[in-house]
Amino acid sequence: MNEAVHNLPSERFEVEHIAPADIERRSFEIIRAELAERDIKVDPCLENVVLRVIHTTADFDFAQNMVFSESALSCLRERIASGTSICTDTQMAKMGINQRVLSRFGGSVHCFMSDEDVAKEAAERGVTRAIVSMERAMQRKEPLIFVIGNAPTALLHIYNRMKEGFEPAFVVGVPVGFVNVEVAKERILRSKVPHIVSRGRKGGSTVAAAIINAVLYELVE
Amino acid sequence: MNEAVHNLPSERFEVEHIAPADIERRSFEIIRAELAERDIKVDPCLENVVLRVIHTTADFDFAQNMVFSESALSCLRERIASGTSICTDTQMAKMGINQRVLSRFGGSVHCFMSDEDVAKEAAERGVTRAIVSMERAMQRKEPLIFVIGNAPTALLHIYNRMKEGFEPAFVVGVPVGFVNVEVAKERILRSKVPHIVSRGRKGGSTVAAAIINAVLYELVE
Repeated sequence: MNEAVHNLPSERFEVEHIAPADIERRSFEIIRAELAERDIKVDPCLENVVLRVIHTTADFDFAQNMVFSESALSCLRERIASGTSICTDTQMAKMGINQRVLSRFGGSVHCFMSDEDVAKEAAERGVTRAIVSMERAMQRKEPLIFVIGNAPTALLHIYNRMKEGFEPAFVVGVPVGFVNVEVAKERILRSKVPHIVSRGRKGGSTVAAAIINAVLYELVE
Repeated sequence: MNEAVHNLPSERFEVEHIAPADIERRSFEIIRAELAERDIKVDPCLENVVLRVIHTTADFDFAQNMVFSESALSCLRERIASGTSICTDTQMAKMGINQRVLSRFGGSVHCFMSDEDVAKEAAERGVTRAIVSMERAMQRKEPLIFVIGNAPTALLHIYNRMKEGFEPAFVVGVPVGFVNVEVAKERILRSKVPHIVSRGRKGGSTVAAAIINAVLYELVE
């Protein structure tokens, strides 16, 4: 690698001068233009969420891998607006969700992944912390929006409990990875729970937070 | 979307039964196999970091867009091992970095993005919070590893200060996005600072944390 500082007379890339408040709007313009160039059509009702996920990842695969159950967005909007809380499997997603806006509606974000008793119980039982975290959430007897950005075992556990009668308020199923991720998502996709899923291996904490924030920002516009 | 629960006699995908402690190892095996299938060679010295980033994103673009300055990894290892702290532009990255392991070496993670005085000053000056955060970090007069997972303006500001003589201990330049992200990275790539950069538009908080964690886990193996 060339390690000297080059002050090239003409920079190969130019800095675009833009006010902070305009950066997001400009990003969305660029994304829309590129979707048009690639001839990818996004359902206008879903655009808010899909664009924010692409904005967060710079990955246009999300223009085509996201699956929304029937009336998913109006359902999620209604849940959030009526104060339903969120349970997530990643502290990163909890940090990324705009809790200031969420709390205006009465909801909060739970994440039990770092709880010492959860780690202890998971080790004793030989299961993932994600599974024990989901059980902690289900014990709360309050309606919950499950936002899974990391662990397929969390999603599989939710699905297995659903077969036994448990009813999540909503499931955002966007774990990322190579072991059991796709199968966990396919189970949710075939179920009755209102859901948003990123089909395939991609997903993650930033995707999870972006989906929730897209709905939050729409609610306060 | 079909909303009924289907208990299909033969599931299209099967759950792979695997102990929690083996999930990561199995994921890395799958990633290595797929790199081989795609005929993508990763420098064995860089494999630890590159594989962890692919593991975190399920995105094989990172097998080819990551750029390491000369001896970047031994430099970053040495910095961390000698207790150098980290400054990041995203609370999500701060949450994702394994601070328990980092603290064994004496370092900690700073993120000034949520500080009220930072937001206030940014608004008054009409600049991004990221720029003001970087200034707070530079005022600390301690060597710092800058880990930029989100804001190109943070990276550009570091670069501009470097031209005036400021010397970061290391720069992980992995912001994600569509406005000024590529140009900010290109400036770092042409500079003298030891760095790891994800060239192009992709990057993000999970990528940033994965890079640091890869080095941390190697140090404690």
